[in-house]
Amino acid sequence: MAKSEPAKKDKPHKAKKDKTKKTDRAKQKAVKSAKTPAGPLVSPLAPRGGFPALPVIKGAAFAAASAGVKYQGRTDVMLVTLAPGTTIAGTFTRSSTRAAPVLDCQAKLVSKPASDTGAAILVNSGNANAFTGAAGVTSVGAITGAVAAALSIPPARVYSASTGVIGQELPHSRIIAKLPDLCAALRPDGIGMAARAIMTTDTFPKGAFAEIEIDGVPVHISGIAKGSGMIAPDMATMLVYIFTDAKIAQPVLQKMLSRLTETTFNCITVDGDTSTSDSLMLAATGQAGATEITDLRSKGARAFQGALHAVMLDLAQQVVRDGEGATKFVTVAVSGADSDADARRVAFAIADSPLVKTAIAGEDPNWGRIVMAVGKSGAKADRDRLTICFGDVLVAEHGQVAPSYREEDGAAHMRGQDLMIKVDLGLGAGQCTVWTCDLTHRYIDINADYRS
Amino acid sequence: MAKSEPAKKDKPHKAKKDKTKKTDRAKQKAVKSAKTPAGPLVSPLAPRGGFPALPVIKGAAFAAASAGVKYQGRTDVMLVTLAPGTTIAGTFTRSSTRAAPVLDCQAKLVSKPASDTGAAILVNSGNANAFTGAAGVTSVGAITGAVAAALSIPPARVYSASTGVIGQELPHSRIIAKLPDLCAALRPDGIGMAARAIMTTDTFPKGAFAEIEIDGVPVHISGIAKGSGMIAPDMATMLVYIFTDAKIAQPVLQKMLSRLTETTFNCITVDGDTSTSDSLMLAATGQAGATEITDLRSKGARAFQGALHAVMLDLAQQVVRDGEGATKFVTVAVSGADSDADARRVAFAIADSPLVKTAIAGEDPNWGRIVMAVGKSGAKADRDRLTICFGDVLVAEHGQVAPSYREEDGAAHMRGQDLMIKVDLGLGAGQCTVWTCDLTHRYIDINADYRS
Repeated sequence: MAKSEPAKKDKPHKAKKDKTKKTDRAKQKAVKSAKTPAGPLVSPLAPRGGFPALPVIKGAAFAAASAGVKYQGRTDVMLVTLAPGTTIAGTFTRSSTRAAPVLDCQAKLVSKPASDTGAAILVNSGNANAFTGAAGVTSVGAITGAVAAALSIPPARVYSASTGVIGQELPHSRIIAKLPDLCAALRPDGIGMAARAIMTTDTFPKGAFAEIEIDGVPVHISGIAKGSGMIAPDMATMLVYIFTDAKIAQPVLQKMLSRLTETTFNCITVDGDTSTSDSLMLAATGQAGATEITDLRSKGARAFQGALHAVMLDLAQQVVRDGEGATKFVTVAVSGADSDADARRVAFAIADSPLVKTAIAGEDPNWGRIVMAVGKSGAKADRDRLTICFGDVLVAEHGQVAPSYREEDGAAHMRGQDLMIKVDLGLGAGQCTVWTCDLTHRYIDINADYRS
Repeated sequence: MAKSEPAKKDKPHKAKKDKTKKTDRAKQKAVKSAKTPAGPLVSPLAPRGGFPALPVIKGAAFAAASAGVKYQGRTDVMLVTLAPGTTIAGTFTRSSTRAAPVLDCQAKLVSKPASDTGAAILVNSGNANAFTGAAGVTSVGAITGAVAAALSIPPARVYSASTGVIGQELPHSRIIAKLPDLCAALRPDGIGMAARAIMTTDTFPKGAFAEIEIDGVPVHISGIAKGSGMIAPDMATMLVYIFTDAKIAQPVLQKMLSRLTETTFNCITVDGDTSTSDSLMLAATGQAGATEITDLRSKGARAFQGALHAVMLDLAQQVVRDGEGATKFVTVAVSGADSDADARRVAFAIADSPLVKTAIAGEDPNWGRIVMAVGKSGAKADRDRLTICFGDVLVAEHGQVAPSYREEDGAAHMRGQDLMIKVDLGLGAGQCTVWTCDLTHRYIDINADYRS
């Protein structure tokens, strides 16, 4: 697919006036496609069965519209409305160059607005409203103010996000002009449309859900995500919105979200790059009729957290499965480290290593590169206590290749689509599991712009 | 060139018995070459004029031989002998999985052997003797012991290094069998042969030199290096040997080398990966007849350090210019940071970012990705004080694109072969400059093994 729409990415280089260059580029793309095979329209790692049938969340309604922010012929804005009483939590990119909407969401969450009014989330794709100076702040104020006015709710309860080109002013009036249509189109079962409207380079919309009972009352969680490039921890480059009809006090909701983010969205990496716009929000409408969760240690809280973890992990892994150019889904499980932090260092040193990722692309059981990555990680490691497995195949131990290891066993594991790299450092109880994908020619096709 | 010899790399996967797979791989290589153009035999970034005419260093002699460690039809062992009185300093990879020869060199340097005897350095390519357990230690002892016996010098004055496949036992007897030939072939002007014998995936041998006067006496520095993949700071994946006829006390020599490594070999990156074998050694024979340097602050020391810095920077940049798949040489200069350490974080966040490196490959002036990399670096940064230039073109300032910036000016700079990315953080006096290359299809060709 190379860069055919809707696969446009956060990049500032496409001046609209630049017609000549576009023609040149089209020519070069033709040349390039003679060299590299056409990409899949949908990632080969996409979950089978397509977008799941997400349960309706009472108190949440969704709409999507085509505002023409950048893309033509597709939806690019989603609006979510949330009933009075909804509590909201969020985690965001730690980038020091984060975008105006991210700063606005963070400020609003910190101000702890009362949850007795309605709330809303508006997201556009096609333009990230990042590195846009004062104009960026103006756009956020204009959009969230207009949504607040249209829905008669306080601006402090309106959150927004933008994803797409960095460094171009957001044409916010195009979005505001669509608000009447969006408000008229709101539907409790519209979450699938919303998931599609926020896609950029994604090759499939991402959704996950869970259903549990709290004190005998059924409670639902439905979540959507976008993201496929600029994916790295803290946070992965993503927008994620999760909704539940459980009733959860805001401080508890925030603690659950922050804690579970560490082992889900902060444990994935596609290219080690971090976006300026990553946002993850969790809204609890409280309309299932279940007992309110006010204590993290309660039975209800534990049940809910288990279900929320499953939804977050599913969405996080779907982001990796849509990693730009990915053909292999790789789990890197590190154990026996001196600390969890050290295990994390080793896991990401492996998962981010271009040499490891290209070997995986080539189905090469190149365990020497795993040794290299462990060595460079900076974590405490003893070469002679290191154990490496590919899946169930013991590859290396005691500072050398395992006597039982046969190259063909390692190669057989690497030919699979879902791979497992296990590293035990033999030092302590620290552990960490992260998920990544391979590094292929397609990643370069997608991210290099052939206009020389 | 893809993986045609002599471009074999540190990887353990090629079992010799595996004839069937090799045939398969050959077929797939044919398929692949229909997709991607054949690579250059020599990097397009190689210095013009070829290998320089390095000055002879009195007291040093060089030989090369074909021991058949792995490669056929080329030299793969170099021997350097150093006259009595030579002082030697070294810096090595900080990898926790470093190879047996590295550990041996470090132990010997720490033991501070008297410099009144001769010394020697033996290096083989084709096998890294890394992650080889006790056998690795045995091989190092056998080789350095045999060299010591052949030259009648103490084993503590014999240093070795190995580069190539990780995880296979080094066939050290093949190397030892060549020692009589090597000793017979020693020549003061043989350094070019030595540079070729230590190459692995390198597409050109790397040499640099300087000539200065110390108290009116001419003094020479001649250095050679190998390295093109697994290149990252602390140290870049390299072997580097530098020789001078200056007379320098060992502690002073070591301090100079360690200090200058920080701003040269520890400021380059090809892929952010770090090898298990990186070694940099500096030997001073003292035979030029110049005054001995015993004080770092002396005039002679300052002059020598300036010349040594130039040789080290030249060699370090040559390693980047031979980066696997490189088509652009990129200088990343960061200033205005809160500290030098912060500047270094930002510089490497940019230089190691796959999104930045693929944009450069595509000649795309994608400054949004520079903003992203600054943001993810973890360094103190204020979006609104950030200034970005491509060469002399002001791209962004005050948190947004510069009013004067024209896309075609940025694009014109990116079409060059030597690029400059300047980032000023506007916060303090911290600065750091690093060098890298672009990330191209060829990097993936070289590092992915197509045997699916």
